[in-house]
Amino acid sequence: MSEMKFDVLAIGNAIVDVLAEASDAFLDERGLHKGAMRLIDEPEADALYAAMGPGVEVSGGSAANTAAGLAALGGAAAYIGRVRDDELGDVFVHDIRAQGVTFKSPAATDGPLTARCLVLVTPDAQRTLNTYLGAAVMLAEADIDPAMAAAAKVVYLEGYLWDAPEGPAIFRRAAEAAKRAGRDVAMTLSDPFCVDRHRAAFSDFIASSVDILFANEDEVKSLYEVGSFDAAADRAAGEVKVAALTRSEKGSVICRAGDRYHVSARPAKVVDTTGAGDLYASGFLYGYTNGASLERAGHMGSICAGEVISHLGARPRQDLKALIAEQLG
Amino acid sequence: MSEMKFDVLAIGNAIVDVLAEASDAFLDERGLHKGAMRLIDEPEADALYAAMGPGVEVSGGSAANTAAGLAALGGAAAYIGRVRDDELGDVFVHDIRAQGVTFKSPAATDGPLTARCLVLVTPDAQRTLNTYLGAAVMLAEADIDPAMAAAAKVVYLEGYLWDAPEGPAIFRRAAEAAKRAGRDVAMTLSDPFCVDRHRAAFSDFIASSVDILFANEDEVKSLYEVGSFDAAADRAAGEVKVAALTRSEKGSVICRAGDRYHVSARPAKVVDTTGAGDLYASGFLYGYTNGASLERAGHMGSICAGEVISHLGARPRQDLKALIAEQLG
Repeated sequence: MSEMKFDVLAIGNAIVDVLAEASDAFLDERGLHKGAMRLIDEPEADALYAAMGPGVEVSGGSAANTAAGLAALGGAAAYIGRVRDDELGDVFVHDIRAQGVTFKSPAATDGPLTARCLVLVTPDAQRTLNTYLGAAVMLAEADIDPAMAAAAKVVYLEGYLWDAPEGPAIFRRAAEAAKRAGRDVAMTLSDPFCVDRHRAAFSDFIASSVDILFANEDEVKSLYEVGSFDAAADRAAGEVKVAALTRSEKGSVICRAGDRYHVSARPAKVVDTTGAGDLYASGFLYGYTNGASLERAGHMGSICAGEVISHLGARPRQDLKALIAEQLG
Repeated sequence: MSEMKFDVLAIGNAIVDVLAEASDAFLDERGLHKGAMRLIDEPEADALYAAMGPGVEVSGGSAANTAAGLAALGGAAAYIGRVRDDELGDVFVHDIRAQGVTFKSPAATDGPLTARCLVLVTPDAQRTLNTYLGAAVMLAEADIDPAMAAAAKVVYLEGYLWDAPEGPAIFRRAAEAAKRAGRDVAMTLSDPFCVDRHRAAFSDFIASSVDILFANEDEVKSLYEVGSFDAAADRAAGEVKVAALTRSEKGSVICRAGDRYHVSARPAKVVDTTGAGDLYASGFLYGYTNGASLERAGHMGSICAGEVISHLGARPRQDLKALIAEQLG
């Protein structure tokens, strides 16, 4: 039997975010769809960066944000992802380790640069993501250590990772290792367009392998191609053990078989919604892997999401543990 | 006669800031002097970075921040400084140009990496700076284009630059070009320890060449080695045309010969004091070069400083023009 070292092993695209403010007109001129994530190649990344306003660089990556949040809560988190041995790669590695996350993936010594996501934050605090995947998509099936997956209570996979050439193989290998050890597999749908790109494959993987599904309203409706949230929630509840579905300011609904737990959103002065879903997953998984009820886990998710949207960047800044103690007791 | 293209040409160390929160104990263990700037070499930068918490990267550099703030106000700003052609160098160049500052200095193609400043922000919002000067100190006398200096109403020099091997020669060349064209030379003392390192040279340069002196209370007292602020202010007023002296929450005092204008600080929720002095200079110089009274220029400085201390990082985020219109009319 393997030792249980981690609450969560998160696997995803290792990315540094470049956040800049942008007007709605800036998005319109470039045909950018507000709130969504779009993949761009290096020339387009260069051109968009040149046109953007002054930025702030912060480590990001959806599953990496979740792992960082979990560690900030006092959970034992590990992360697998690929950077290049360049300056932004150094920043990514420093930040995730400094947050207390176990991270052992070696940096690529050649090939594309560390991935970056050009995040345009509009005055309504919405973020529009433009991701140059660079070194992140060089993550290979062989980088997934089955012993690490077996040593985590939950293996958490981000949907975005399916865009990598070996993404599907990575998902399979991680899920198999987790299942063999009797662990839970969690997945986030990541983005409605990501769901569009991989709907059939996601559906198969979810039905066969996922225990805990994270999605927002748009994503889960897109997955099942239904118009109502309740219908989508019912479908999800029929396929996975637990579905944690977020609805922005309407809070979240946690589904287990026929049960529905409604959790309110935490009031926040919204500065930048980047990372809201990622940090909701941090709080929820911290609760889930440490014996909290589903409802309490949901409230933990809400509190973490509320913190991360109150400032620029998708990694927590305030003491999440203290916030939860203060608000939930 | 050269064309007057710029309100201000700023010259300084081109640096990317890496900001992270730190406890007082973290500073104490390492013998770091809170609120001051310390120069560190590459091995020490690596060691300190490894020990620091997760960070945020933002373009910085004292005079560069001042140029960025001046451009944000609608002023015509130019900047001279040296980066390497690496990722953080790209970030620096992007950010200063995206802010509308004219920047033409070519990036070094070899030698040390782009300078970085490890900024430790303590819970009291004070910042402690640890600067690895890297490529910044490769700035050479030959990089100062006399035509550019002659084309600016004010040439603004940061004291920190004196730490570069060619710093004194850069100061002389820039000041000579400015004087020859009948322009004003401005200087900031940068930091009390910087004053300590170069007191005699600074005194000579100020007496012979500076028209507008920027300093905070500690710096100006250190320069003249006097115990009282008023005595230091009197000394400064005797040597330069205008001295703009900042006193944190006590506001600032602007001295011209026997006149003293007292300007209050703007109330702000203080998050990070990095850049307060730099942005005060932005506001003051914008006013000064655009026909405002010294008192009004001081209020502009206060408003800009108040904005930059209300968030992480030393570059402005809010619309400074709108803030000034709102608060000063």
